[in-house]
Amino acid sequence: MTVDRMTALLISGTDHCEVVDLPVPVPGENEVRLAITHCTLCRTDAKMLHVGQRDLVLPRVPGHEIVARHERTGSRFAVWPGAACGHCRSCLNGAENLCAKMRILGFHRDGGLAEFLCAKLENLLPVPEELSGTVASLAEPLGAGMNALDQLDLSEGNRLLVAGAGPVGLLLALAARQSGWRVTLSEVSQARIEQTRPFCETLQVPVLAPEALPDEFDAAINATSAPAALEQITSHLTNGGQFCLFSGLPTGTDGGALLNETHYRQLRLTGAYGCTRAQMRRALDLLTECPQEAGLLIGRCIGLEDAPEALRRIWNGMALKHTVCFE
Amino acid sequence: MTVDRMTALLISGTDHCEVVDLPVPVPGENEVRLAITHCTLCRTDAKMLHVGQRDLVLPRVPGHEIVARHERTGSRFAVWPGAACGHCRSCLNGAENLCAKMRILGFHRDGGLAEFLCAKLENLLPVPEELSGTVASLAEPLGAGMNALDQLDLSEGNRLLVAGAGPVGLLLALAARQSGWRVTLSEVSQARIEQTRPFCETLQVPVLAPEALPDEFDAAINATSAPAALEQITSHLTNGGQFCLFSGLPTGTDGGALLNETHYRQLRLTGAYGCTRAQMRRALDLLTECPQEAGLLIGRCIGLEDAPEALRRIWNGMALKHTVCFE
Repeated sequence: MTVDRMTALLISGTDHCEVVDLPVPVPGENEVRLAITHCTLCRTDAKMLHVGQRDLVLPRVPGHEIVARHERTGSRFAVWPGAACGHCRSCLNGAENLCAKMRILGFHRDGGLAEFLCAKLENLLPVPEELSGTVASLAEPLGAGMNALDQLDLSEGNRLLVAGAGPVGLLLALAARQSGWRVTLSEVSQARIEQTRPFCETLQVPVLAPEALPDEFDAAINATSAPAALEQITSHLTNGGQFCLFSGLPTGTDGGALLNETHYRQLRLTGAYGCTRAQMRRALDLLTECPQEAGLLIGRCIGLEDAPEALRRIWNGMALKHTVCFE
Repeated sequence: MTVDRMTALLISGTDHCEVVDLPVPVPGENEVRLAITHCTLCRTDAKMLHVGQRDLVLPRVPGHEIVARHERTGSRFAVWPGAACGHCRSCLNGAENLCAKMRILGFHRDGGLAEFLCAKLENLLPVPEELSGTVASLAEPLGAGMNALDQLDLSEGNRLLVAGAGPVGLLLALAARQSGWRVTLSEVSQARIEQTRPFCETLQVPVLAPEALPDEFDAAINATSAPAALEQITSHLTNGGQFCLFSGLPTGTDGGALLNETHYRQLRLTGAYGCTRAQMRRALDLLTECPQEAGLLIGRCIGLEDAPEALRRIWNGMALKHTVCFE
């Protein structure tokens, strides 16, 4: 039986998305068709729907945290969502996430909130048999966290502050703990602190209200787009400390004072955006080592028809990860 | 004969400075008294006078680019203007310019625009016999430039853009050229480009209008506080490139767009403020290697009575370095 139509979620404009019927995509050169098994929702998907995103081209099927089966062999893969040129300096230096010609599934091309997807073989990272699809779908956001941590120059025992105890902050904590750094999460919402307690206790990572933070950290990362969080974490950095801008800031954020703080206190700020294949492979390895801890981040498995409501929940508040399951 | 009064320049408030008669300072513990021979004016001195500065405590004798003679031995020294605690983490890590208890001559304590100064022996860096006092007084700003360059992770042949071809930009070019980096200066003022041609030709460093800049640099530094210059240099950085915030930005600068650029293009921004003793010693070594090139940066030698007018000229425009000569 040849399937030629599929169900997909389509964003057509700000606050407009619906489940639609689309043609099944046809593989291009060097591509294979995959049947998607899991696609986990990212706050960036919610951002795309509600305020747009720099790299978003509409109309678009979103979704970039994807696990899928090869249509013919049935093998399972986590899908690196990028398409890089392969021959620019960034690509040749192993930083293909910085390729100026980067095109991203779910941003420039249709992504994983659909039954089928076409991708190049080189983008497919095998998922170990024992790893569940829900947990394996965290390889992309965890890989992005690893990319952020790779931008910091830290040694074992250094103190890292992660602002925001949402799913991204928790994934950062998971990755940082593996590096031997002393991680502290900060979170303004007491309800979120309660929600994440099982995860934080399992990881033995403290999660504190900002006013309860100890004094000086060697490094910090923002895992929330709130400008106040960025100011707060820099105020807790030692002179000469490092911080990573992992979450983009709302348009119109005034960053002048922060830049001068960086100047006078000789701080080091690094951006982080996306991840490389190698980082996503390392993320899969880590998920395979600690599937139970990672599994605590999955709040719900939902059907595609529930995705619009889930995106609204994610945008407005405190949801843990929602995974759309197709099989 | 005991001298107990001295002439000094005193800043007492915004746009208020005058040459006054002050008591000669009395050495504190572990300090010696020095007779100042040269103090070169910095744009920060002009900033202090005209808009204030974060670390300035009024009333204040400014001046932190100082060469002086030991009152008893007559030996000449460049004076590292800092006073660090010596036992905090920054101090123990050899980054004493980041000491949270830092007090700076000419900022927190009276500086070099006076006939005498007291300083600790550990702050005194011997000036080689053959080096003129005017050129030796550039050790502090050149050391600050070396500190900025030390924040960048570059290899020989990498392309560095320095925005602003004033004295600071030219000192940065001098230091960067020694590292084997390919330096380009950018400058908005055609008059400034003409003024600095002798220096740039001697150094074989191109100085270009922004619109004539080639495409992609590995790293960049702002040697001007103009926010537009910072935007301009980041637009010429390769993805994943580095930039150093060497000049602080005017209060009220909107840096939000720049922060998001840093996020999306995974740039690395480092602040730089002051220098360590070791960096200032390296600066003295470099000045001793190329006194003629460095000498091209000294526009005028003046008397203390001409300093107020010189500070106004520096603040308003295009002056090269002015050195106040006391002997």
